[in-house]
Amino acid sequence: MAAYKHFLVDTPAPFVAHVQINRPQKLNAFYEEMWLELKEVFDTLSLSSDVRAIILSGAGDRAFTSGLDVQAASQQGVLQQEAGKSNDVARKAVGIKRHVQEFQDCISSVEKCEKPVICVMHGITFGLGLDISTCADIRICSKDVKFAVKEVDIGLAADIGTLSRLPKVVGAFSWVKDVSLSARIFGGEEALRVGFVSYVLDNKAAALNKALELANLLAEKSPIAVQGTKELLNHARDNKLADSLRYTGVWNSAAIQTSDVERAMLSGLKKTKPRFEKL
Amino acid sequence: MAAYKHFLVDTPAPFVAHVQINRPQKLNAFYEEMWLELKEVFDTLSLSSDVRAIILSGAGDRAFTSGLDVQAASQQGVLQQEAGKSNDVARKAVGIKRHVQEFQDCISSVEKCEKPVICVMHGITFGLGLDISTCADIRICSKDVKFAVKEVDIGLAADIGTLSRLPKVVGAFSWVKDVSLSARIFGGEEALRVGFVSYVLDNKAAALNKALELANLLAEKSPIAVQGTKELLNHARDNKLADSLRYTGVWNSAAIQTSDVERAMLSGLKKTKPRFEKL
Amino acid sequence: MAAYKHFLVDTPAPFVAHVQINRPQKLNAFYEEMWLELKEVFDTLSLSSDVRAIILSGAGDRAFTSGLDVQAASQQGVLQQEAGKSNDVARKAVGIKRHVQEFQDCISSVEKCEKPVICVMHGITFGLGLDISTCADIRICSKDVKFAVKEVDIGLAADIGTLSRLPKVVGAFSWVKDVSLSARIFGGEEALRVGFVSYVLDNKAAALNKALELANLLAEKSPIAVQGTKELLNHARDNKLADSLRYTGVWNSAAIQTSDVERAMLSGLKKTKPRFEKL
Amino acid sequence: MAAYKHFLVDTPAPFVAHVQINRPQKLNAFYEEMWLELKEVFDTLSLSSDVRAIILSGAGDRAFTSGLDVQAASQQGVLQQEAGKSNDVARKAVGIKRHVQEFQDCISSVEKCEKPVICVMHGITFGLGLDISTCADIRICSKDVKFAVKEVDIGLAADIGTLSRLPKVVGAFSWVKDVSLSARIFGGEEALRVGFVSYVLDNKAAALNKALELANLLAEKSPIAVQGTKELLNHARDNKLADSLRYTGVWNSAAIQTSDVERAMLSGLKKTKPRFEKL
Amino acid sequence: MAAYKHFLVDTPAPFVAHVQINRPQKLNAFYEEMWLELKEVFDTLSLSSDVRAIILSGAGDRAFTSGLDVQAASQQGVLQQEAGKSNDVARKAVGIKRHVQEFQDCISSVEKCEKPVICVMHGITFGLGLDISTCADIRICSKDVKFAVKEVDIGLAADIGTLSRLPKVVGAFSWVKDVSLSARIFGGEEALRVGFVSYVLDNKAAALNKALELANLLAEKSPIAVQGTKELLNHARDNKLADSLRYTGVWNSAAIQTSDVERAMLSGLKKTKPRFEKL
Amino acid sequence: MAAYKHFLVDTPAPFVAHVQINRPQKLNAFYEEMWLELKEVFDTLSLSSDVRAIILSGAGDRAFTSGLDVQAASQQGVLQQEAGKSNDVARKAVGIKRHVQEFQDCISSVEKCEKPVICVMHGITFGLGLDISTCADIRICSKDVKFAVKEVDIGLAADIGTLSRLPKVVGAFSWVKDVSLSARIFGGEEALRVGFVSYVLDNKAAALNKALELANLLAEKSPIAVQGTKELLNHARDNKLADSLRYTGVWNSAAIQTSDVERAMLSGLKKTKPRFEKL
Repeated sequence: MAAYKHFLVDTPAPFVAHVQINRPQKLNAFYEEMWLELKEVFDTLSLSSDVRAIILSGAGDRAFTSGLDVQAASQQGVLQQEAGKSNDVARKAVGIKRHVQEFQDCISSVEKCEKPVICVMHGITFGLGLDISTCADIRICSKDVKFAVKEVDIGLAADIGTLSRLPKVVGAFSWVKDVSLSARIFGGEEALRVGFVSYVLDNKAAALNKALELANLLAEKSPIAVQGTKELLNHARDNKLADSLRYTGVWNSAAIQTSDVERAMLSGLKKTKPRFEKL
Repeated sequence: MAAYKHFLVDTPAPFVAHVQINRPQKLNAFYEEMWLELKEVFDTLSLSSDVRAIILSGAGDRAFTSGLDVQAASQQGVLQQEAGKSNDVARKAVGIKRHVQEFQDCISSVEKCEKPVICVMHGITFGLGLDISTCADIRICSKDVKFAVKEVDIGLAADIGTLSRLPKVVGAFSWVKDVSLSARIFGGEEALRVGFVSYVLDNKAAALNKALELANLLAEKSPIAVQGTKELLNHARDNKLADSLRYTGVWNSAAIQTSDVERAMLSGLKKTKPRFEKL
Repeated sequence: MAAYKHFLVDTPAPFVAHVQINRPQKLNAFYEEMWLELKEVFDTLSLSSDVRAIILSGAGDRAFTSGLDVQAASQQGVLQQEAGKSNDVARKAVGIKRHVQEFQDCISSVEKCEKPVICVMHGITFGLGLDISTCADIRICSKDVKFAVKEVDIGLAADIGTLSRLPKVVGAFSWVKDVSLSARIFGGEEALRVGFVSYVLDNKAAALNKALELANLLAEKSPIAVQGTKELLNHARDNKLADSLRYTGVWNSAAIQTSDVERAMLSGLKKTKPRFEKL
Repeated sequence: MAAYKHFLVDTPAPFVAHVQINRPQKLNAFYEEMWLELKEVFDTLSLSSDVRAIILSGAGDRAFTSGLDVQAASQQGVLQQEAGKSNDVARKAVGIKRHVQEFQDCISSVEKCEKPVICVMHGITFGLGLDISTCADIRICSKDVKFAVKEVDIGLAADIGTLSRLPKVVGAFSWVKDVSLSARIFGGEEALRVGFVSYVLDNKAAALNKALELANLLAEKSPIAVQGTKELLNHARDNKLADSLRYTGVWNSAAIQTSDVERAMLSGLKKTKPRFEKL
Repeated sequence: MAAYKHFLVDTPAPFVAHVQINRPQKLNAFYEEMWLELKEVFDTLSLSSDVRAIILSGAGDRAFTSGLDVQAASQQGVLQQEAGKSNDVARKAVGIKRHVQEFQDCISSVEKCEKPVICVMHGITFGLGLDISTCADIRICSKDVKFAVKEVDIGLAADIGTLSRLPKVVGAFSWVKDVSLSARIFGGEEALRVGFVSYVLDNKAAALNKALELANLLAEKSPIAVQGTKELLNHARDNKLADSLRYTGVWNSAAIQTSDVERAMLSGLKKTKPRFEKL
Repeated sequence: MAAYKHFLVDTPAPFVAHVQINRPQKLNAFYEEMWLELKEVFDTLSLSSDVRAIILSGAGDRAFTSGLDVQAASQQGVLQQEAGKSNDVARKAVGIKRHVQEFQDCISSVEKCEKPVICVMHGITFGLGLDISTCADIRICSKDVKFAVKEVDIGLAADIGTLSRLPKVVGAFSWVKDVSLSARIFGGEEALRVGFVSYVLDNKAAALNKALELANLLAEKSPIAVQGTKELLNHARDNKLADSLRYTGVWNSAAIQTSDVERAMLSGLKKTKPRFEKL
């Protein structure tokens, strides 16, 4: 695995990558260089044939991430960058829009990654932490997690993905609005009850174990089947039923011709573990 | 605050408006004049710079609202109005369609209101009560609430918004169909479990207190941030992810230029309450 | 009721049809002839004026259905059928796409059926069992049910509807991805918690009783109102709010002219059971 | 017909209304009061049972309309109105957005009008003139017409409908971008060639005659059929084919039950002019 | 080729089928049995590996088709069929909707046919003739053609596809509305000018020759490439750009693996006619 | 301007960039390195504040571009690249899909470029030449141009954008299908008639002159207005009317606050050329 400045990436098990946000002394707070690197990490993993499942967590005991590093943002953030260029409102707006789109693109790399991503959250998980986690496929947390859609408290509507994705990953719209408008902190049990996370474990270690177990399970299956399932579910989320069925049929017209089907079926009959060609 | 015939509107706290459906002797049942006035109330609050959060409840002990006043409807409802005009099925259909659209528009004013709306429901909350509440942003109820999507029991499919919005505010489609097809009564605990409401309180007073606390919290925050969050969440509900991200970027290209960001950040550092310019 | 080879269809109560998948010796596993017949059954019930509510269950003690009959599929499935025709990848893909579309169409007949469908699941309910049940309107199960989105374990992404419909019938996207990617078994309590089913009963008999009770309730109501409600909810699931409201207005411009409204209202006043003309 | 301050409305033939923009001394340039009144005019005609076709033209010899009255706008336009309220960019943006939406709504009233609108353009037809004409159903012009999408020349992207509707009423996207980006003037022949107008006549009088002839033709037909055709074509423009076919089926399920079908068929056989009930 | 009651189907050249509407003594007017058979014809051709291009024309000298056989419709049409069943407006509406959907499905079979369809129109081409021709891929006509969207003249809005498809096959919306609202007759030159047809020939024989020449050209090309092009263009018509590009990529991920690419390229180099495997 | 390997980029006038595809000895045929560089060119121009309008043409006398360099593709194209990796159909499909998406992204950079792009085509303009030109905003050609959607002749459906964009830039769907299915050559006059190009000039030099004149015109206008117009027209092409109007209102809520409006208006009054701040 390549070395990164802000992320630890290792391979705890065959075909499983573990990505850690690695700035624990600052509660894993993000500044621009970090989200650019996040995209680099996930774009690489997306194409790596040695990876079939990914765990994403935050280094240290205290936080998945506290979100945007507000201090850094106040010194070198978008408003500062635009400030020097023009005082014209419309020109600033163009600069901000470009900046937001690039920021969104970096975070979206977690969602666009072809491999399933399991996000493990503990401790402080604020603002950008939610933007990132809503891009993951499966969300797991520890009991001590403190979630907050924090952006309104710094005077802005969250624009890096939370407001776009939260209503699509949690069905209870009243709850989505409650936490997004109030910026209040909520914990793991509440997150499980409304379906934001799938599992709450006792502590970070247990949550990571659960994620590893799950990642192993996914990594042992046909990568054609697993990655196709991710793609088709993401397509379904955004499309009408008829369009989703049509896309599915075309997708599988190639995918079903894989040898994985025969291998998987034979292994099922023989009760052996199938081995699948790299992808 | 202006005086209305069928609604009590007052200001229980700074920047907080409380709207009460005020026909308790008839279980707050609605007739045409009332939904026309409802629109007037919310269109006005939407633009009032003195309002940053709205509570909507029903006056009296017995009902948020029993829904359409069936007696009034049978005397001066759409079918009666159309009856005198023409016997031609297609001409009647045109009249009915116009009437339904106007009725829908009135109720949609609660959703289109730029300020967040917290709906507090108690006692009987039937039919039109659900149409209205699905337009609100956050739903709260008391334990004694009796909800029912009542329309099938008077021989029609609900057409003022419940069938359009309920599948978008609750994720469990089997439950949505169960209550919409059966017209059965369900209570607060069930509503909480499926995510229709965010909070169930012991009684109406406690529910109103909770709503007031929440409204105060929202009213103290940047109105640019809060109202932007409402707008972007409603946009996300109806649009594909890519379109939602694009819209968000454009929205914030102006919104982020507000002085609220600096005020909010400074207050956060100084641990003071920020004050925001009127909106 | 007509006689079918693979399905038992009877009338346990007036206006209520009960369809049983009837191949219990093979855990109600499906092969091609069966899904073609499934469509025949539901297309017929959709138009029958003697039917106002439908229960769908699996015969025998052990399974709603174990899904695709893998043995049959390996002998006469799509891959076998295409194998003899051409070795050209693109030509095979065309054949597979046609086959998948026809298969999807057969299963979609449950959703397109104009009458509400209550699906009762017990025992093994794997793969195609979920494709079918996501087409139903209301899902009920017994405690002993074992659900699994099994397809990844045979090397493919589910393509007969589960991946397209599951995100639309359950709001918790993390859970949807968890079970779809892992193929793990989950039970009734979990299904109820996430909203996949509306009721969990102690055993199959109790679940069938519950379904019958519910079907009777629906069958006694105005068929214009009930069937319109199904149609409008399905439309709402797939469309933007504004489009859904517009469609609803046009739908009801004819539907409200029914005599059922008057009958239902009169019965409500007189506390009698209304009788509605056939549909 | 009611009297209006800025519009002449008369009835040149049975069931035909003629609306003239009536500020010829100012080239029919628009200021706020006028577009508010425009909406009033078309909302009224939309519901009037005495009107089955509408002609929209500009009074005087020189212009359909020169568009926005720039002088008035510079004194009492949105920027002026917002200027006094707040210097906060985001607050101004909210004010502008509200203003633009209201302006758009006024112009859209021409499109939402249930009756077909034939727009006759002559002389100067700039800016807002195109916004309005793209809302009409049929566009006719005289040879002397001078069209221009003028907004870029005053430093802004047209926001009252031209940029949203022009690509939907003319298929040649290269041409649409050419005239919208360059603000160049184009004439009637070019407008006919690309399909923006359906007819070019020698002069304003001839164009009005053509419009009247066409309006008479439409006014003699079944209003159920004509108004349904307008509605269904507008729906088709904005929707996928499958959704459009579905909506059409529901629409006609009521509309076909009209007596107009029988009347029209009988008249066809008898070679008489059918008379249709008011709508 | 199979024999049909109302259609002549023969093979004028290898891989080319010619379908003629064959009721010339009645101007090829359609009644229910005919559109059911039309679907049978095109569903069969769609799957026939001996067919790569289809010509659709009308037998006799006088008409492609005069549209619906109004006399037959007045005796056994939907209104007559529904008349006997119920007087309830809503129940009639359900019956009509079912009927319209079935009728639409039959006509849509021309569009859903996987092979390109070239429609040759001459003489009278009214009403249903346009519904059918808008489903074809390429439209050709003779100079003597008389087109009319005739439905408003029998008191109804066209509901079998013209209003849904015409705005999608012709860009000039003003023209589309003009001919759809007025029901006026238009000829070949006008149809060419607005882009409704691609070619106008001197007479029916010349038009058929042109169609045959074109069909031969298409039939000699790779069927994988030709049929994929039809599918992708139809998908593009109904979808956003991003969705269309995504679908295209998935489609070609299988299609490009065909041997046709190599065969086509080699033939290009060798200047020989390629031969492609059946599809 | 930066130097590129395959493209000449210069500045023929203030704020105007001219990009030439520069491989004339090979008819400007493209291989992979070139489309990667094309994206680099347009991504750079998109952000350059010295550029307000872009001309794209092909170097040399003979061709805008002959499209894909088939010889290069047969040696190092996607099929060759995938050939060595796996024989599994599904794995090849994944590789092809990734390759096509990257290819599409490169070409789409012309469309995503924030500045208007005027495409000047002469001589041979085949295959990829059309993919590229459909991304441009305004299309101009010389009389000697030879256009062809050439892909079916090498056994594949065009997948780099032509099939997705051509139906959105030309309204005549019969013509779009004719040229896409037949791969026949068509010239400038035909392209003008159907609206594919906006201007046909006598020869390449004249076409370039026309483009330069147009580019100069655009470059002198407010860049806020011009670039906003491009963005809003592209948004309108892909969205429903209501969504387009909503997006437009939000866009202009920032854009209208520019000083360009005042500068443009003043210059209009004073008959001087306005100067606008860089963007």
